[in-house]
Amino acid sequence: MQAPLEPVRWEDDHLRILDQRELPERLLYIRARDVETVADAIRTLAVRGAPAIGIAAAYGVLVGALAGRAIRVADSVRGGATGSGGSNPAAGAREAARAAADQLQTTRPTAVNLFYGLNRMRAVLAREQGSEAELLTALRAEADAVLDEDLKTGEAIAAAGFALFPDQDEVHVLTHCNAGGLATGGWGTALAPIYAAHRAGRKVHVFADETRPLLQGSRLTAWELKQAGVDVTVLVDGAAATLLTRGRVDLVIVGADRVAANGDTANKIGTLGVALAAREAKVPFYVAAPLSTFDFSLPGGDHIPIEQRAAEEVLGTRGAPGAAAFNPAFDVTPARFIHGWITEKGVLPPPFDEARSSR
Amino acid sequence: MQAPLEPVRWEDDHLRILDQRELPERLLYIRARDVETVADAIRTLAVRGAPAIGIAAAYGVLVGALAGRAIRVADSVRGGATGSGGSNPAAGAREAARAAADQLQTTRPTAVNLFYGLNRMRAVLAREQGSEAELLTALRAEADAVLDEDLKTGEAIAAAGFALFPDQDEVHVLTHCNAGGLATGGWGTALAPIYAAHRAGRKVHVFADETRPLLQGSRLTAWELKQAGVDVTVLVDGAAATLLTRGRVDLVIVGADRVAANGDTANKIGTLGVALAAREAKVPFYVAAPLSTFDFSLPGGDHIPIEQRAAEEVLGTRGAPGAAAFNPAFDVTPARFIHGWITEKGVLPPPFDEARSSR
Repeated sequence: MQAPLEPVRWEDDHLRILDQRELPERLLYIRARDVETVADAIRTLAVRGAPAIGIAAAYGVLVGALAGRAIRVADSVRGGATGSGGSNPAAGAREAARAAADQLQTTRPTAVNLFYGLNRMRAVLAREQGSEAELLTALRAEADAVLDEDLKTGEAIAAAGFALFPDQDEVHVLTHCNAGGLATGGWGTALAPIYAAHRAGRKVHVFADETRPLLQGSRLTAWELKQAGVDVTVLVDGAAATLLTRGRVDLVIVGADRVAANGDTANKIGTLGVALAAREAKVPFYVAAPLSTFDFSLPGGDHIPIEQRAAEEVLGTRGAPGAAAFNPAFDVTPARFIHGWITEKGVLPPPFDEARSSR
Repeated sequence: MQAPLEPVRWEDDHLRILDQRELPERLLYIRARDVETVADAIRTLAVRGAPAIGIAAAYGVLVGALAGRAIRVADSVRGGATGSGGSNPAAGAREAARAAADQLQTTRPTAVNLFYGLNRMRAVLAREQGSEAELLTALRAEADAVLDEDLKTGEAIAAAGFALFPDQDEVHVLTHCNAGGLATGGWGTALAPIYAAHRAGRKVHVFADETRPLLQGSRLTAWELKQAGVDVTVLVDGAAATLLTRGRVDLVIVGADRVAANGDTANKIGTLGVALAAREAKVPFYVAAPLSTFDFSLPGGDHIPIEQRAAEEVLGTRGAPGAAAFNPAFDVTPARFIHGWITEKGVLPPPFDEARSSR
């Protein structure tokens, strides 16, 4: 099934990246034909969302291999293939791909999916010892597989989440931040069930918290839902509690950055407040996340490190001079406020462990 | 005792209004010598906060009377006092003052304090039948009294709230929106106890929610606290729940737009979410408000009308085209989440009624 969005796609000879920094004002694509362009796109959040970063990084290694080949060809044309490229036709591409992986590794220091995507490509480089053409084919196939697996995960989350929708004329879903197609290969996590419901002909109305300080809700979630023809209403984060307690929401679905073994869930700052209001309003609160987000080594939320981000993100919008800022990127919602975790293996209850997740 | 701020003050022959639209970037004063300037300042939120509006309106009637006198004097100089000013030396000023009150009445349709301030001045116009000088003196005295009573109320709230501060080295207070000196004659409501503590030499650290969509927290609360030398840290509204549940706050104090007889309290959008998080964190949550904010005719919060404001306030900051907005100005915090109401008569428990409040 065609995914709702295509934020990262291979086109002929280059990687096409939807530039999320420009949304919602402009729909611009970055056409990456060298590794630095891919690295820059990841570093500057042109591509964001853990799965999307992993996919971009995997294709980035292919971009590196192709650029390496091009350099070798150019050398040959100038009348003398030299260096490692001279003795083995695949060596130039392989070396360039390895350098690309090393370069991409440094773009976002804590992104698990980034390392995952790069390691998948490194394994191909170690394994594939044939011609240059064979190497390039294998790299392309592996990057495609990283994307394809993410899309299958998204479809499975879509189906599992859609099954939770109440049987009524119109369903009202509240979400926070952007766990959408833009953050993944194209289906998203929290938004995937909404796309499934919309495609099934169900009436869905999404309430999107704007999600300060970076406004991923009003900029990205609202944009991608409108693109897909889904009705969306944006609210300031402070309005979620009154929306929920006044009975305007049927269920809440949010994404996750990391889930501990006991179910405590780290997600974008503001998620905890939504969970507290949902509990007060007796509205079911779900987390949608692939199993790769679950960290079985962490017994509980206290062990999840929380990144503190720049004060400028908060105070840059007319903040008073001299004021300090408290700007954690994430908060942790205790498992007891969460009704279920929507994964590609279905809706799971905690506690989680590897054995259960692979059933 | 000198108030921490002077947002609205009479100076010699004119009304000086601190232009809050320009904060925190610029400290500018409006010098009003005609009624239209005062009306415009109220209408465009150069002066905001119910008590401050009431004070500005009262002085605005004096501005009108003085401008009316000036016109009569100018007429005389041109060689013929005519009209109502001719037969009674006070009539020109009185007529101009009445017209000023009528004009100011229309600036903010739902502001109770505005009508209160104007009616105080109208009563002087009806009562004072002496010379022009006597009328002007009486109008000036009445406007001064409106300001002075507000300052006394603020000082009493400051003392009552300060008494709630825990006895420890440094006290951490979370507030939402701006219920500060800027919104009143100069002490504020929610911030008044903080000023009292600071002046008493206590270490106080304030956490100020930025308060989307209009950022009264990061723009105004942070500014006025820094002016007074109080440490302040700004956070996005979504970060309050994690701040509270991580034990970083000793007490919450917010203002109120309206309090029902059962204690349900309408205040700036986002207050309810703070109250829910404070309950979860077992942090005391107080409302600071003068008794004029209590509406004994409303049995509960369901009866408080909630103003829906323009979508542009939410979506104007990079919102996706085509998205709708849910933008209520206020929410209602149920009385059961509130530990006490800090008033000029002390800290009151609900239910409220006129008999109790006047004890």
